[in-house]
Amino acid sequence: MSEVPAAPSPLRLGVLASGNGSNFAALAEAIAGGELAAQIQVLIYNNPDAPVAQRAQQWQIPSVLLNHRHYPSRESFDAAIVETLKTYAVEWVVMAGWMRIVTPVLLSAYPQRIINLHPSLLPSFRGLHAVEQALAAGVKITGCTVHLVTEELDSGPILAQAAVPVLPDDTPATLHARIQVQEHRILKQAIAEIAAQQVQVSR
Amino acid sequence: MSEVPAAPSPLRLGVLASGNGSNFAALAEAIAGGELAAQIQVLIYNNPDAPVAQRAQQWQIPSVLLNHRHYPSRESFDAAIVETLKTYAVEWVVMAGWMRIVTPVLLSAYPQRIINLHPSLLPSFRGLHAVEQALAAGVKITGCTVHLVTEELDSGPILAQAAVPVLPDDTPATLHARIQVQEHRILKQAIAEIAAQQVQVSR
Repeated sequence: MSEVPAAPSPLRLGVLASGNGSNFAALAEAIAGGELAAQIQVLIYNNPDAPVAQRAQQWQIPSVLLNHRHYPSRESFDAAIVETLKTYAVEWVVMAGWMRIVTPVLLSAYPQRIINLHPSLLPSFRGLHAVEQALAAGVKITGCTVHLVTEELDSGPILAQAAVPVLPDDTPATLHARIQVQEHRILKQAIAEIAAQQVQVSR
Repeated sequence: MSEVPAAPSPLRLGVLASGNGSNFAALAEAIAGGELAAQIQVLIYNNPDAPVAQRAQQWQIPSVLLNHRHYPSRESFDAAIVETLKTYAVEWVVMAGWMRIVTPVLLSAYPQRIINLHPSLLPSFRGLHAVEQALAAGVKITGCTVHLVTEELDSGPILAQAAVPVLPDDTPATLHARIQVQEHRILKQAIAEIAAQQVQVSR
């Protein structure tokens, strides 16, 4: 009689998003299609009118609005995020267009377990408006990066990157659209690798 | 009767190199093969035992050794370079592995007409040991850049770039070899574009 190994339990993700949510949607779709051994436990968003909330509804994923304007400090806001993540039994946190500075309150609750998507080939063009920065610098190639979040902005260990050409007539919008196609791909790639490592670790 | 336009005269290049000369050789070969409307008027090298000198001999290109150790200052060294370039009627200067800091003496003699090859996707990893810097930073993608030389190190306008994957087992040598294949390609591409622009300008 041979032992049948139990199917690994899916990686329990919490997604933080501020805006349109195209990366959230790409992730939800990949999970629904069986591409990723993961599930999104909860979406946390901070702008009441962020389109990402409708996307969560569409995919029947619980969503929680935490409006940073209602918290006295970054730390108290992050404490509310941590509480929500724990309530939904989140193991890994995915920042997909999360436009807030992260404090040690969140970092220490999920050490080495928070990933961020940044629309440049880090270490080039850290911080806000990375696509505009790349256009202003006149680079011919830019891209996107998935990295672990650490206290220093856009500087944690890199998990995945993709290169994207800058075309002569690009505007921030056309270039960002081209980058986003690659963002979806490397976000899925990074989460697949994390899920595979978790299985190894738990054996 | 239609007028037959005269064939454009080839772009007269001077190459500065310090080392192995693989980019010099790639350029010489492309010119010999009729790929580029350019010719190398002279190679200037600064290390008596630089292998690039043999390459020049092989391609029957004049080469001049200017040993920086024999000059009292960076400026006097650059003045000797300018004199040599002018003697050989050089129009555009190509730094292909030139390991010396450039002074305004050379920059002002060839304003906006000096190009440099750098083994990273600028603005990432300026300065020395760019390949080692990329490995230390843990990036998944690096590359190379052809740019105009200005007074600020590795910061002039970008003419061409190429992306190169970093593989898990890469050493500086294996990664640099992969980058060099792309260096040869974008150096030729940049010079072809300059030659095409010169023709437009002269019409």
